Amino acid sequence: MGLNFEIVARDRATRARAGRLHTPHGVVETPTFMPVGTAGTVKGMTQEHLEQLGVQMLLANTYHLYLRPGHEIIRELGGLHRFMAWPHPILTDSGGFQVMSLKGLGRVTEDGVYFRSHLDGSLHFFSPEKAVEVQLALGADIIMTFDECVEYPASHETLLRATKLTGRWARRAKEFYETRNAKLEMQNSKRISDDGFRASALASGPQSPVPSPALFGIVQGGTDQALRRQSVEEIVGIGFEGYALGGFSVGEPKTEMYETVAYTADQLPEDRPRYLMGVGTPEDLGECVARGVDLFDCVMPTRNARNACVFTSQGKLIVKNARYATDEKPLDPQCECFVCRRYTRSYLRHLFLAGEILAGILATYHNLYFYLDSVRRMRQAIVFGNFERNYSRVRAGL
Amino acid sequence: MGLNFEIVARDRATRARAGRLHTPHGVVETPTFMPVGTAGTVKGMTQEHLEQLGVQMLLANTYHLYLRPGHEIIRELGGLHRFMAWPHPILTDSGGFQVMSLKGLGRVTEDGVYFRSHLDGSLHFFSPEKAVEVQLALGADIIMTFDECVEYPASHETLLRATKLTGRWARRAKEFYETRNAKLEMQNSKRISDDGFRASALASGPQSPVPSPALFGIVQGGTDQALRRQSVEEIVGIGFEGYALGGFSVGEPKTEMYETVAYTADQLPEDRPRYLMGVGTPEDLGECVARGVDLFDCVMPTRNARNACVFTSQGKLIVKNARYATDEKPLDPQCECFVCRRYTRSYLRHLFLAGEILAGILATYHNLYFYLDSVRRMRQAIVFGNFERNYSRVRAGL
Repeated sequence: MGLNFEIVARDRATRARAGRLHTPHGVVETPTFMPVGTAGTVKGMTQEHLEQLGVQMLLANTYHLYLRPGHEIIRELGGLHRFMAWPHPILTDSGGFQVMSLKGLGRVTEDGVYFRSHLDGSLHFFSPEKAVEVQLALGADIIMTFDECVEYPASHETLLRATKLTGRWARRAKEFYETRNAKLEMQNSKRISDDGFRASALASGPQSPVPSPALFGIVQGGTDQALRRQSVEEIVGIGFEGYALGGFSVGEPKTEMYETVAYTADQLPEDRPRYLMGVGTPEDLGECVARGVDLFDCVMPTRNARNACVFTSQGKLIVKNARYATDEKPLDPQCECFVCRRYTRSYLRHLFLAGEILAGILATYHNLYFYLDSVRRMRQAIVFGNFERNYSRVRAGL
Repeated sequence: MGLNFEIVARDRATRARAGRLHTPHGVVETPTFMPVGTAGTVKGMTQEHLEQLGVQMLLANTYHLYLRPGHEIIRELGGLHRFMAWPHPILTDSGGFQVMSLKGLGRVTEDGVYFRSHLDGSLHFFSPEKAVEVQLALGADIIMTFDECVEYPASHETLLRATKLTGRWARRAKEFYETRNAKLEMQNSKRISDDGFRASALASGPQSPVPSPALFGIVQGGTDQALRRQSVEEIVGIGFEGYALGGFSVGEPKTEMYETVAYTADQLPEDRPRYLMGVGTPEDLGECVARGVDLFDCVMPTRNARNACVFTSQGKLIVKNARYATDEKPLDPQCECFVCRRYTRSYLRHLFLAGEILAGILATYHNLYFYLDSVRRMRQAIVFGNFERNYSRVRAGL
């Protein structure tokens, strides 16, 4: 396995663990939350803001970048890190979720998915191989296999079919990925030997070929434990550098989600990172860290922010509400982010009502701070051995 | 005069001067450019960005803040500085330009202007007195008299009528302002004497009553030099703490603007700040600093930025253009702003095409940096005695 993942601490009372994930662009301390940078930007944030927030890894959407500006252009410009001026870790999704959810026009076949662009209606095709190819062009640190994600509720038949298909696609993605890697290695070694006496220096130095991205497999199966078990067996059997829990937060009740996450995580290899895709609320993060999840992503903090919904230590706050018209308190009096140290609810409310760009900027920064700080405190608690106490506090406060 | 203005250096070859304007919220080194914060925010910028840019004074629009959130609310919240968390100097315009330009529904009478809100069509009335009252509630450092601004071209009759009306309104504004100040002083001295033995400490300490804003008069008269002279005589006769050159950049040819600015500025008192309203391009700034102007404001750097038009040392650049699709250069290779140190034209182009918030943020920051840096260099050159050389370079480069 190319992706070094160490577990540095385990909680005694829960399944929570603190780890260090070594990627080509730096170490990610887990558990961590990845802000969503759909089109190569986290909406409303500068990369300087993200660094100030302590963002360790970003998620970018393969589907969006494939359509615009195009993965070939990004490859030509040296990859996504360079294109978006983000020299830290990036994970790209496979596009599977988007091609199936953004347009009702998608058609799933054994080979892959036909879908129409949400930008101009043009017809496109994604297969497991194509998804890997596009992601290799983007050049993230972690890339995902192409899966079929099913909404809740779904019939057992639908779930079974999608889970089986996800398994077959995962195998094809892995094979394609390995063939591509072998080719790349041959090219690299050829380049090094062509380079004469500099070869040994290059091979060990900082200019040595960038390792290819780590490929993560995705487990499906809805809330059906038997299907989840079969999916884990199949995906782990193929073998990936990390495992994602897909198909959550698609409409199922919270208790079922937490139970199935726990059940699924328990069967995944201890020594590999676990990524719960598209989840969730601040409460979900605490609950799922306790169930052994290492990585999260979700549009909730950023999308809610743009709709004037902010997360605070006292719960959600809709800052557009008339009651905040003359409220001089910060969004969250307990928060230490720059927004809460400087700006008032009354000012934020005014900015939202006036449709000002600054509204989204300030609310997004605050929400991301809330999420990142929250998960950072969980990690600290795991390391210091007081996660359960901290986690109950988190649960009670939200 | 309450507003201390020192001239620290004069250029030998031109009318350019470098000064220091002491306001209740700090010193403004002139010449300077004021970014426009229409609704209490410079679109796309955090206040932290503005501080980083070295913005010395902001302009805010009385018309917009009067309509939303309302001047009474801002007064209740401690004034505009506190409301928008900007503890540095602020200048508010009088609303005259907006009530006449935003809606064709305005009706000018001797008493004032009836106009409809651009937000909900509701009917409002602004008079010279009302404009001062609203601005006092906002509590800026510098406030403006209510004037009638005429578009170019206009008949001599129209210009004459508007210039005369502006004069009569200026007198009413001054009288109202003085009456309000006298009342305020009485209240302050009463509060201090009620406060017993703390009175002397309070009167001299940092908690002493905030000085009332300085009132600037506005000279009109289009490009008619005789009218400009009459207007200067009348407005200077009334007596203000600073003088604005209004009615420029309304469609007149550049050469006429420069000539009339020079003619008008020459007749204004040497020892008072001169403010050229709503001007202009980077070239205009150089030309008009050379003609003796101290203060500028304009929406051009911020509005253009949001439309993908950026200012560079090589001229304007429309970053949406296809030619920048794979251009890895910064917006301006000569620029040292954080945007140019980190982001490429290709990335900016992508952000604009994708309609991402970050596009406006980065382009706005860069354009403001370009304007502010440009004027800062002019000031430096005036102080160092090489303005003419520097100024010719600026003129040639743009």
